[in-house]
Amino acid sequence: MVEPFLYPELYIDRSLETSGKKASEFLAWFKKEIEPFLEEYFDEKIREASEVHPEAVVLVEEIRRMVGAGGKKIRSAFAYAAYVASGGRSHEAILYASAALELWHTFAIIHDDIIDESNLRRGQPTAHIAFDKFHQNRNFSGDSQRFGISAAILAGDLAFSFADELLDSAPFPAERIRRAKIYYNAMKQQTAYGEHLDVISQFKKQISEADVLKILEYKTAKYTIERPLHIGAALAGADEKYFQIFSAYGVPLGQAFQIQDDILGTFGKEEEIGKSVDSDIKEGKKTLLIIKAYELTNLLEKSVLNKVVGNKKASEGQIEKVREIIKSTGSLKYSDTLARELINQARGVMTASKLAEEGKNYLLQICDFLLVRAASLVDLR
Amino acid sequence: MVEPFLYPELYIDRSLETSGKKASEFLAWFKKEIEPFLEEYFDEKIREASEVHPEAVVLVEEIRRMVGAGGKKIRSAFAYAAYVASGGRSHEAILYASAALELWHTFAIIHDDIIDESNLRRGQPTAHIAFDKFHQNRNFSGDSQRFGISAAILAGDLAFSFADELLDSAPFPAERIRRAKIYYNAMKQQTAYGEHLDVISQFKKQISEADVLKILEYKTAKYTIERPLHIGAALAGADEKYFQIFSAYGVPLGQAFQIQDDILGTFGKEEEIGKSVDSDIKEGKKTLLIIKAYELTNLLEKSVLNKVVGNKKASEGQIEKVREIIKSTGSLKYSDTLARELINQARGVMTASKLAEEGKNYLLQICDFLLVRAASLVDLR
Repeated sequence: MVEPFLYPELYIDRSLETSGKKASEFLAWFKKEIEPFLEEYFDEKIREASEVHPEAVVLVEEIRRMVGAGGKKIRSAFAYAAYVASGGRSHEAILYASAALELWHTFAIIHDDIIDESNLRRGQPTAHIAFDKFHQNRNFSGDSQRFGISAAILAGDLAFSFADELLDSAPFPAERIRRAKIYYNAMKQQTAYGEHLDVISQFKKQISEADVLKILEYKTAKYTIERPLHIGAALAGADEKYFQIFSAYGVPLGQAFQIQDDILGTFGKEEEIGKSVDSDIKEGKKTLLIIKAYELTNLLEKSVLNKVVGNKKASEGQIEKVREIIKSTGSLKYSDTLARELINQARGVMTASKLAEEGKNYLLQICDFLLVRAASLVDLR
Repeated sequence: MVEPFLYPELYIDRSLETSGKKASEFLAWFKKEIEPFLEEYFDEKIREASEVHPEAVVLVEEIRRMVGAGGKKIRSAFAYAAYVASGGRSHEAILYASAALELWHTFAIIHDDIIDESNLRRGQPTAHIAFDKFHQNRNFSGDSQRFGISAAILAGDLAFSFADELLDSAPFPAERIRRAKIYYNAMKQQTAYGEHLDVISQFKKQISEADVLKILEYKTAKYTIERPLHIGAALAGADEKYFQIFSAYGVPLGQAFQIQDDILGTFGKEEEIGKSVDSDIKEGKKTLLIIKAYELTNLLEKSVLNKVVGNKKASEGQIEKVREIIKSTGSLKYSDTLARELINQARGVMTASKLAEEGKNYLLQICDFLLVRAASLVDLR
């Protein structure tokens, strides 16, 4: 597949450098490519904001801080890999789309942190907490917490707008961007639905396993993997059948990814995952682990679950008791097995595909990475 | 100017019906065109949401309710008028862009109402209040207010995504949409900056007249008038000089519009403007009226302003005293005169322009409408 290319001066075939790399090597390489691109964009946006008003700059600074605070750049890397796997060859142009996904993710986490009332992300203050402190430092009048939430809502909205601008201005032919926007717009709507279902699940007394998997599909699988792959494919001008392959690969892989994350969120090591390993239980997060434990448990244990899950003041002893129930009921084993099956399903689809080797290699490596992660996740006994 | 047109089956030259209409007649006509278009879009989105999950539908229903709750459809009408004035002739295609602006405005007011803690808009509950009640009706667990804000943030985000989708899928050539997106993306960012400056102004003890005008420029003038005009012009394939005309017309008119709104917000009749006429003073909104009164007042009156402005428990007698100070200092007269000057400035630009008569007529009529509004606004003595 040869790509008709609009701006030949940007044609630098660096994507082939990804060939033969392991998933972690590819991600490290990719971060080194995308980060300077993002920095340059932020420099420009800060110049623009300062021309509007010196006070406007803080919104951009906060978005930049959130982007810089870490993150695996996994969504943007998926878009990049799918672009290369679909025959795309413009390193610079696809970075625009990858950066757009990074900014859109930043929007999503800023609003998500307000909704979840989270104070920390990756060990750093969340946006509404940072703006709360900004209010205090500036000695503004009024309620600093209210100011923090207001400014964070706006910073999120601005990051959303930045994302749109980056994708709209990517140096691809306009028709190709228009095609990518179909998948991008679907992603944005589906993520809002998934997030809403997740919010509702926290306020409902009980939800079904089918509902948990639905949330995983919309909030994580489509958002983190399937749609970024589709966006990359669309920008490479890929054939319709490629999109089906990316769906058949991306959805199960994304579900597995989130199930693993939930296992780590309760059984992992705090220093490795960067957040406390009791918050999911304390917040009453309706993970597959919890839903399945409820389903498989006896009456006595159920009363423990009722007392501890969603109880923000639960003791470490009580949390540990819930962990034991998740193990003894077989819920942990069930979740871990399901995650492995989903990863293998994705791996099978990708292996059988005829995608270009450089991108395909990464997409397979990611499966292997997650299988190894599964093996080392927790002691399943 | 003849428009190269992509989908000839949609070419229905209904825009000429606008010719010779007064501003209010044009707006009434336009509402009858845009409303069925929006209803059809919402029907489709509700179908999609219900396929995701029955619980997802409420987000779309809430957006639909907010759009249906009234509003003058002024932004979308400006885009329409500029499109026609620039020689555009596809009624159906420009409705997509107009609908996009309506949805983006709905996003903006949903988030704005959260930020301002407003309970009512146009006499109806705001989105976070409606979701608060939804939580109570459904007998969900947890804090209904927190749920209301979370769901409203997400409904706003979803409306933002709908807006993008509508503009991206408008049946125009892709290159033309790409050009319109430059102005659309600028609008989104500038509105966030304007809104942020407005939020900051509420938390600062004092701001300057220049800052007030800056907020008017970004939060209202560019957002409500200039950028919608540019989007319409870009979709008609207008020449660069048209954009300058629309800026020279749109920015002063938008500033005047907001100054008038602020006068009405303190001196108008509650039943006419659909919100209470003491809230601006009680919330300490930094309007030109207030800033100028502070500037022109004596020490004794300043202590009254300090005590009443921003005091949520101020009595009607105290509010009336502030109104008297705004009058006696000449601040009301100053604001009213400035608004008229700005409208006449916009009118002069439009009169001298060589835009197509049908659209130009409406853009002139709007000036006349606002001048009449100014004349009847308040007793300036």
